[in-house]
Amino acid sequence: MNDRIPTPTATPPDILRCAYMDIVVTDLAASREFYVDILGLVVTEESETEIYLRPFEEFIHHNLVLRRGPIAAVAALSYRVRSPRDVDLAEAYYKELGCRTERRSNGFAKGVGDSVRVEDPLGFPYEFFYSVEHVERLAWHYELYGAGALVRLDHFNQVTPDVPRGRGYLEDLGFRVTEDIQDSDGVTYAAWLRRKDTVHDTALTGGDGPRMHHIAFATHEKTNILYICDKLGALRKSDLIERGPGRHGVSNAFYLYLRDPDGHRVEIYTQDYYTGDPDNPVVTWDVHDNQRRDWWGNPVVPSWYTDASLVLDLDGNPQPVVSREEPSELAVTVGADGFSYTRLGDEEHGFKLGNTL
Amino acid sequence: MNDRIPTPTATPPDILRCAYMDIVVTDLAASREFYVDILGLVVTEESETEIYLRPFEEFIHHNLVLRRGPIAAVAALSYRVRSPRDVDLAEAYYKELGCRTERRSNGFAKGVGDSVRVEDPLGFPYEFFYSVEHVERLAWHYELYGAGALVRLDHFNQVTPDVPRGRGYLEDLGFRVTEDIQDSDGVTYAAWLRRKDTVHDTALTGGDGPRMHHIAFATHEKTNILYICDKLGALRKSDLIERGPGRHGVSNAFYLYLRDPDGHRVEIYTQDYYTGDPDNPVVTWDVHDNQRRDWWGNPVVPSWYTDASLVLDLDGNPQPVVSREEPSELAVTVGADGFSYTRLGDEEHGFKLGNTL
Amino acid sequence: MNDRIPTPTATPPDILRCAYMDIVVTDLAASREFYVDILGLVVTEESETEIYLRPFEEFIHHNLVLRRGPIAAVAALSYRVRSPRDVDLAEAYYKELGCRTERRSNGFAKGVGDSVRVEDPLGFPYEFFYSVEHVERLAWHYELYGAGALVRLDHFNQVTPDVPRGRGYLEDLGFRVTEDIQDSDGVTYAAWLRRKDTVHDTALTGGDGPRMHHIAFATHEKTNILYICDKLGALRKSDLIERGPGRHGVSNAFYLYLRDPDGHRVEIYTQDYYTGDPDNPVVTWDVHDNQRRDWWGNPVVPSWYTDASLVLDLDGNPQPVVSREEPSELAVTVGADGFSYTRLGDEEHGFKLGNTL
Amino acid sequence: MNDRIPTPTATPPDILRCAYMDIVVTDLAASREFYVDILGLVVTEESETEIYLRPFEEFIHHNLVLRRGPIAAVAALSYRVRSPRDVDLAEAYYKELGCRTERRSNGFAKGVGDSVRVEDPLGFPYEFFYSVEHVERLAWHYELYGAGALVRLDHFNQVTPDVPRGRGYLEDLGFRVTEDIQDSDGVTYAAWLRRKDTVHDTALTGGDGPRMHHIAFATHEKTNILYICDKLGALRKSDLIERGPGRHGVSNAFYLYLRDPDGHRVEIYTQDYYTGDPDNPVVTWDVHDNQRRDWWGNPVVPSWYTDASLVLDLDGNPQPVVSREEPSELAVTVGADGFSYTRLGDEEHGFKLGNTL
Repeated sequence: MNDRIPTPTATPPDILRCAYMDIVVTDLAASREFYVDILGLVVTEESETEIYLRPFEEFIHHNLVLRRGPIAAVAALSYRVRSPRDVDLAEAYYKELGCRTERRSNGFAKGVGDSVRVEDPLGFPYEFFYSVEHVERLAWHYELYGAGALVRLDHFNQVTPDVPRGRGYLEDLGFRVTEDIQDSDGVTYAAWLRRKDTVHDTALTGGDGPRMHHIAFATHEKTNILYICDKLGALRKSDLIERGPGRHGVSNAFYLYLRDPDGHRVEIYTQDYYTGDPDNPVVTWDVHDNQRRDWWGNPVVPSWYTDASLVLDLDGNPQPVVSREEPSELAVTVGADGFSYTRLGDEEHGFKLGNTL
Repeated sequence: MNDRIPTPTATPPDILRCAYMDIVVTDLAASREFYVDILGLVVTEESETEIYLRPFEEFIHHNLVLRRGPIAAVAALSYRVRSPRDVDLAEAYYKELGCRTERRSNGFAKGVGDSVRVEDPLGFPYEFFYSVEHVERLAWHYELYGAGALVRLDHFNQVTPDVPRGRGYLEDLGFRVTEDIQDSDGVTYAAWLRRKDTVHDTALTGGDGPRMHHIAFATHEKTNILYICDKLGALRKSDLIERGPGRHGVSNAFYLYLRDPDGHRVEIYTQDYYTGDPDNPVVTWDVHDNQRRDWWGNPVVPSWYTDASLVLDLDGNPQPVVSREEPSELAVTVGADGFSYTRLGDEEHGFKLGNTL
Repeated sequence: MNDRIPTPTATPPDILRCAYMDIVVTDLAASREFYVDILGLVVTEESETEIYLRPFEEFIHHNLVLRRGPIAAVAALSYRVRSPRDVDLAEAYYKELGCRTERRSNGFAKGVGDSVRVEDPLGFPYEFFYSVEHVERLAWHYELYGAGALVRLDHFNQVTPDVPRGRGYLEDLGFRVTEDIQDSDGVTYAAWLRRKDTVHDTALTGGDGPRMHHIAFATHEKTNILYICDKLGALRKSDLIERGPGRHGVSNAFYLYLRDPDGHRVEIYTQDYYTGDPDNPVVTWDVHDNQRRDWWGNPVVPSWYTDASLVLDLDGNPQPVVSREEPSELAVTVGADGFSYTRLGDEEHGFKLGNTL
Repeated sequence: MNDRIPTPTATPPDILRCAYMDIVVTDLAASREFYVDILGLVVTEESETEIYLRPFEEFIHHNLVLRRGPIAAVAALSYRVRSPRDVDLAEAYYKELGCRTERRSNGFAKGVGDSVRVEDPLGFPYEFFYSVEHVERLAWHYELYGAGALVRLDHFNQVTPDVPRGRGYLEDLGFRVTEDIQDSDGVTYAAWLRRKDTVHDTALTGGDGPRMHHIAFATHEKTNILYICDKLGALRKSDLIERGPGRHGVSNAFYLYLRDPDGHRVEIYTQDYYTGDPDNPVVTWDVHDNQRRDWWGNPVVPSWYTDASLVLDLDGNPQPVVSREEPSELAVTVGADGFSYTRLGDEEHGFKLGNTL
């Protein structure tokens, strides 16, 4: 596994941003209730088999496709590139890497034009497109906003066994690392990578993969995230809250993790920082720092480390999952095998559930 | 234990509100750092042995006394009454109950005049006073507000073995129940009681007692509470966060529980509802409803159930702690002995730490 | 006018709080759109001629009645009293004052029982009741909350020519003044009076009266108020915003004033302070202090001083409006006749519209 | 004036973002009180003649220089470019435009290395640099945050007589228009232009110029902006609030305009939208739409249109101010000469001060 993915001689595409995720859900009505009725995403269009969704500030056709299918999985993580020509560049780039690619001039999803999908070196179904239908940016339509209004797609998060290997591949593709989690032995547990001026467009979480860890939508304020929790409580669906709300150490953003009816994880996220300068300082966190994942030291629930969504190959079959060989973040930080600190060298551990259970 | 406390023939005092808590701390400098530097309470006056504190909207001399002493404990839970004569009524009321009382025309704490302290039937050191020094209400002094500014004392919370017994006593004293937690066998686990127009001035939590569970200060908004967590993280003191932040089921308020350097528990609280009508509806929660203590279903850390502060008798000696005989809320809801539900009758339990650890 | 209203020998009723306003609107559908579709008040019940509304934390039948009629006016300002007997006390009290009264054992509005309505000494239609139908307190029903959710009725505000005369009458009735606006000549321009533990249940604004200045509903947070403005902008109804949003000097609350389709003024209000102690300090503001009405010094629009709603007598006819004889707050503070300061004695006036137009 | 500025054949520099403004203030202590004590900007370093300031999320040496001098003015609007070579490109680009340039390998301000300053075709002192000293990004230092913490430099705003002429020049330089204000005769009143992924790095406001209209800092949330107003009220400096707080139509951001002790205008700004796609839709607003500048229809104070800061040439002398020849936004929208609407074609004007005074 630890062989570096070779750097192609081809020019990589100029990626603008993470643009949409195409996910397979097993009960479209249940998913519609979750994403539309509860989270308030806007339906751009829908059919009996597909729903295309966007948050209030988006002007492209969609940021999320719900596609009815037999197995809950992710069909594509799709990036928008700067020009039509960049789709050609993407296709050539992955062909040089020896990856399977599929080009469709009319796109794989409604509203999207010329696209290429690839089975990337990490096993993920990546897509690249430029051409896309514009729809109304509903930013000013406050009469449609709920109290927890989602306004932007923020990022993807992918599970892969060997984070440095994935990081090298994504850096070659033009991504820049903003933060990571390591230990004193040099093991990397996770890395955050960006194209747009935020902390990330995608992140790599060390674990058995390829699997999709989560998709994240942004709200304007922390109070919007708190409302989503209040609403889930009112609907007696608080068990969909997996982790949070809380303040991340990494990214400094405010967060909440939910699980959709198929178990796909959705993050609600707000207020990270500008990263657009080429010399933006990289922040490295110690895996044993118990404020890295939650700045308030609140424990990470084990399912957050262990659960993730299958991803599909270009035939629609689940990619086999390869085990992580290096230590897991869960093992080195929780319970008998692990330890964490609030103050390096300090023996006190406080009252938190992770310490007392 | 289950004998009802007799109702005196004497008229009870007309209690306005919980007014201040007098607590003994073992390291005054450490406590000052916590309450003044971190939480931002305003120092009305201080000496080498005592610090008198108030939040921004208070106009009486203090809502909290920190008193240096050998054992961390609570010296008094003090209520303000409507008139000087109500102090006489209080004294007579407790004398009829057979309680030890002590009257001091110059008060037990600086700034407070004629007061009576009692060892109440539950073993708590209650105080009643009317006369008090006025100080500036700093409500408009925003130049002094930090981002997590505390504005009011909201309530006390007391641990007592037999909640219905304590409830009957406090109802006789003029308190009204607003909410409680019961089970289908009729066991009461906790009750909330008010004088002013909020959900409570004090609450009774079932457990080994008499002990003091927490003192609660109010902020204006939820974001103020989130900031306190962010600041504790920045100070590398996140281990002082015991539970939360979150939304209570009971009271519908937003909350955070901290532990001071002696382990005294402090709640930060905002946005409960008006309860001032005599027929205000009482809300009863099922002890197995996992949204009762946290509306989002986030688990209650065991220390929150088990830990509390000793209380002192009028000689300054700790009151002996009597065990609760009825089932504990911890036992019936967490782990092997207990169960909780999000939806009554539904078997699913979700991803929460309380369910997975 | 300056004759003091005599203090009755009768015991006044024990008033709990302002409870509801009964207003006549000329286009019930337009009013419904404003109060229900835009502001999100909950409909308890409605017919072709009446709509009964409440905010999310209310448990009595309604806090607002919209009643279809030929002339926009106020039919009643209604207070809840502590017991059924207090209705008798109210009736006797006003009879002794020589006021016309009308008692209806089945109430004047649906959901309300035994009530007395009076034409009070200031010419206002006051109502007093205890018996009322309980409805569900929707406080926990966050799935119904919009982003600008109204949670409580907070207060009334009445226009009367002689504020000290009205103040004396209301103090006799049991109200307590919390704040007022005066000048150095001893003229009183406005006074705030409370029964519940907030800054006011009603206020007296000096001007031609009797007229109703506004009714105020509370939200939880400032951001809820900002959202109402955003929504009105999105609906292209921003011209319904008369004044604000802003921070009051008086009351220290955050505010917004809207005008309903008939011109009735509605305030949205949040975060004043506890006033329940009998020696709560009264705050007196100088009429020339330009932070008294808006803490940020933003100008008060003239219509806010001049416009108000007619009130009805018990036959449903508008009460004649009597002119204020003392100087008006508008005249002494705005434009050629008036002056205001930010810092007493300082000549600078800044850039504000009130100074530059 | 209406001659287009020629497009150079030289490659323009790759501009990352607006980076800092260098302003001359006449009383350094007074300015320090405003920017440091009141607004809470962090001092990177200071001397008796200069103060270097940054907000909490910045990692370059400063975003604002306060420089003591005899006349309040702007010495430079400085942009960071992608690489050292882009400074060469900038120098060559402006030389081809016939502009005066000055190159300093050690920079014009502390902490900044190789820089070029130019007198640009619109008369503004623009600067371009890449090399800069890194300082600590204080994003996680919540213990230092005040309740109104400023976190990023967001944008500049420049006054120039001929907006389309300036727009053409900035588009050649690589900026992209995101929004503008026009009338039905084709007159452009203002335009917003970006490099980073926000609505703007700078904007052109039509008026007598060259002058600097304002510099804008971002906060995380609306409540932070409200707090700044509350604090100014508490300090009895509310007359420094020129306009707002409010919601912009253009940019959809929440805003507040202050005036510093020299009259330099500072905007506090939060929550505009992502604009990084090359086909990001341009929003054009009608100058008569009274929600364009304030979404709530609150009036723009005349000084906001008429006042601005002088800018300096490379010798430190004020640039002469050239009058705008086209109609002014003030004239066409306020008072006798102008008109605005909330709903196009609707005659109603509401209660707002701009309509009633």
